Amino acid sequence: MNLDDFRRHAHETIDLIVDYLGTIEERPVGPRVAPGEVRSQLPSHPPERPEPFEAVLDDVRRIVLPGLMHWQHPAFFGYFPANASPPAILGELLSAGLGVQGMLWATSPACTEVETHMLDWMADLLALPARFRSDGAGGGVIQDTASSSTLCALLAARERATGFTVDAHGLSSAHETLVAYTSDQAHSSVEKAVRIAGLGRENLRLIETDGHHAMRPEALAAAIDADLDAGRQPVFVCATVGTTSSGAVDPVRAIGDVCGRHGIWLHVDAAWAGSAAVCPEFRTMHDGLERADSYCFNPHKWLLTNFDCDCFYVADRSLLVRTLSVLPEYLRNTATASGKVIDYRDWHIPLGRRFRALKLWFVIRSYGAEGLREHIRRHVASAEALAARVSASHRLELAAPPFLGLVCLRHRDGDEATQRLLDGVNASGAAFLTHTRLGGHLVVRVAIGGTWTREEHVERLWERLEVLAT
Amino acid sequence: MNLDDFRRHAHETIDLIVDYLGTIEERPVGPRVAPGEVRSQLPSHPPERPEPFEAVLDDVRRIVLPGLMHWQHPAFFGYFPANASPPAILGELLSAGLGVQGMLWATSPACTEVETHMLDWMADLLALPARFRSDGAGGGVIQDTASSSTLCALLAARERATGFTVDAHGLSSAHETLVAYTSDQAHSSVEKAVRIAGLGRENLRLIETDGHHAMRPEALAAAIDADLDAGRQPVFVCATVGTTSSGAVDPVRAIGDVCGRHGIWLHVDAAWAGSAAVCPEFRTMHDGLERADSYCFNPHKWLLTNFDCDCFYVADRSLLVRTLSVLPEYLRNTATASGKVIDYRDWHIPLGRRFRALKLWFVIRSYGAEGLREHIRRHVASAEALAARVSASHRLELAAPPFLGLVCLRHRDGDEATQRLLDGVNASGAAFLTHTRLGGHLVVRVAIGGTWTREEHVERLWERLEVLAT
Repeated sequence: MNLDDFRRHAHETIDLIVDYLGTIEERPVGPRVAPGEVRSQLPSHPPERPEPFEAVLDDVRRIVLPGLMHWQHPAFFGYFPANASPPAILGELLSAGLGVQGMLWATSPACTEVETHMLDWMADLLALPARFRSDGAGGGVIQDTASSSTLCALLAARERATGFTVDAHGLSSAHETLVAYTSDQAHSSVEKAVRIAGLGRENLRLIETDGHHAMRPEALAAAIDADLDAGRQPVFVCATVGTTSSGAVDPVRAIGDVCGRHGIWLHVDAAWAGSAAVCPEFRTMHDGLERADSYCFNPHKWLLTNFDCDCFYVADRSLLVRTLSVLPEYLRNTATASGKVIDYRDWHIPLGRRFRALKLWFVIRSYGAEGLREHIRRHVASAEALAARVSASHRLELAAPPFLGLVCLRHRDGDEATQRLLDGVNASGAAFLTHTRLGGHLVVRVAIGGTWTREEHVERLWERLEVLAT
Repeated sequence: MNLDDFRRHAHETIDLIVDYLGTIEERPVGPRVAPGEVRSQLPSHPPERPEPFEAVLDDVRRIVLPGLMHWQHPAFFGYFPANASPPAILGELLSAGLGVQGMLWATSPACTEVETHMLDWMADLLALPARFRSDGAGGGVIQDTASSSTLCALLAARERATGFTVDAHGLSSAHETLVAYTSDQAHSSVEKAVRIAGLGRENLRLIETDGHHAMRPEALAAAIDADLDAGRQPVFVCATVGTTSSGAVDPVRAIGDVCGRHGIWLHVDAAWAGSAAVCPEFRTMHDGLERADSYCFNPHKWLLTNFDCDCFYVADRSLLVRTLSVLPEYLRNTATASGKVIDYRDWHIPLGRRFRALKLWFVIRSYGAEGLREHIRRHVASAEALAARVSASHRLELAAPPFLGLVCLRHRDGDEATQRLLDGVNASGAAFLTHTRLGGHLVVRVAIGGTWTREEHVERLWERLEVLAT
């Protein structure tokens, strides 16, 4: 494929995408395939000779598209959104087209500097504490996911707490058992990180939550005291702003006080909710964030930037870099030696990295701060309207306080009726919802945040829910 | 940006990429900017109002392009290649355009099934041992980088060796200190993984290498015996097929014998060299690979697939999944419960994942197996021609046996002359080279593997080296 062919096939691929997005509402939101059905349509062995690109795109239409969950469908309300947008897609395209490596500043200075700049722009947009900006001791980096950010935060916490002795001699050399804390509503990635980092599952305390599913700071303080009394060493607390199940907000200020008393690293995971802080009226969820050592949120969930793009901030970048840096001879260079540049390979687990900051740059400039705020406010208004209808319903009820774009509901007749409601919506193909459990009860989650989701889509979902509930 | 705008701006972006790649040889390969120079051209704060997309692309041309290392330049010979190709770029574009999440089979069946199928196709293309195919107990997955693959392999090794007690109780509960092994020429990511996993830097043994920079199996065996004698527990060996510094190949068969005797997990890192196994004549480097527990190579280095795309294989997927799986309520679904599907979130650290298999599918079908072989053979032939010229030179000499597309050379007059040679080439902007150290001597690496690199580019590099060496 030479460059002329590339231009032609690129236009065909763009046309396929425009056609897909433009007609997506004609498809059932969820996939309708059985396990193995997609694979059974693919040849057993790779082709020996080149095939025309048209044949490839035909197979995309014929085999791939029917086998997808349509996350960009405006009636996709499952999990949390993963909202791509036109400028973000073009940022990803350009990143692939330029094909540069941003592992070191020296391996593409613009890749590093645009990223540092975009992370500072994001700190502006969300009004994050100054300590997370790159002009002080802190700074931000793009990670693939919040899971990786949580792991990196935990690793830096582990090393700070042990004076980098674990890094050198291993956890088996630690005098005390290291302990981490999060709420019983926190994301599964906290447990995953604790296991990867070698702390062990049983040394993660799942702190109890209050009636609104938020971490109880006094329960956290008691758990820490109990571990200290038992000769264990508390090293890490992960607070959640906007839990996956119900959008609960842990009280960061009070949790920060507890962490501060004991010198424990506080990481704040705002993977989904963080994007809403572009609007001043939603920033109370971040109250006390200046007490956190690290913070992350995912523009790839709710800020129009296609996956992957998690923004991870630390208050002291030197701790993170010391935790993750290895400098072999073949990566040495004068810029690194000068100490004047950021080498992002030392800020996360992979070595190589692509130019993901282009996506943020394209999105922020194409929408402007006001466009981003409007995007968030539109979804929150739709969610509030839906929550009001649920509250007024005789058959359905809210299962948790609605928060931002997330509405949790259930049937008043109990779990079986709630399951029928969920299955009914998903079987229709007209919308897609997922579930969770709160207080032992099955709950339907409605996560509103798609790029193309309008009030009318939420309205139609409500009509369907009402019919199915009867 | 609506879909009509998107189509128009996408065509403009494609034109920019075609123009960039078509005129790339007019640019100096390496960047010519000082630290901070790129950032200084960006506004301090994000825009309040939307900007036209044309302004964004203008800034790409004006600010970004001059601040890049041009990895796709045909005279880029630094590090290892990161060779994008037209079909891979279109695969990435389509992945972004579809915007689906492949964390679970259920969240987009085609995303998972095409990936499993492509990893089996790759096993075919490289003639990998049957144990790594998905139709048995093993299987493959796309990771971002070999660094992440090494970490995942180490974690599974840690758990297998301890009966999953570290996972449950933490490394501080281990009765014995866990030890890992690799050669003194291995990639820095092995040390990084050992530190992340909590084993500690000093519990990684860097086994000495022979005159060809390959791990000495008898030294490995001796180190293991010494650790066993001291009451430590050997858990993980990472062998390298194609080291970063010189392309050395550790003897996998003999190392596998040592690991087999002690039940130690053997991971084989063929990040760069693995791609060459598409050609039967280069497969001897994989001799004994059926003794490995895991294996990885990077199509994003030398198989025409833009970053990120590392193929990671395990012989027993159940160990990997058990090591990395956490199943919260909100991710439960009938397909997962049936046990009939793969949920790739349990095969790596992140939860979310994009549809990277499209890149492999597009590349394999667009080039065909014969096109991939031709691509590799062309670079190897160029490297052999360059190595022959170096061997015959009075001023330059080979610093290590050339392997595949990598030629390591130095000036016969010593390090200062070698440094002048390196600086001279890079200052010219006509080509880009990086360095390493072998046996205490400075060495220039010439890594040939760019998508657009032809014999003439290597020939011109040789002419320049010859002039500069005089």
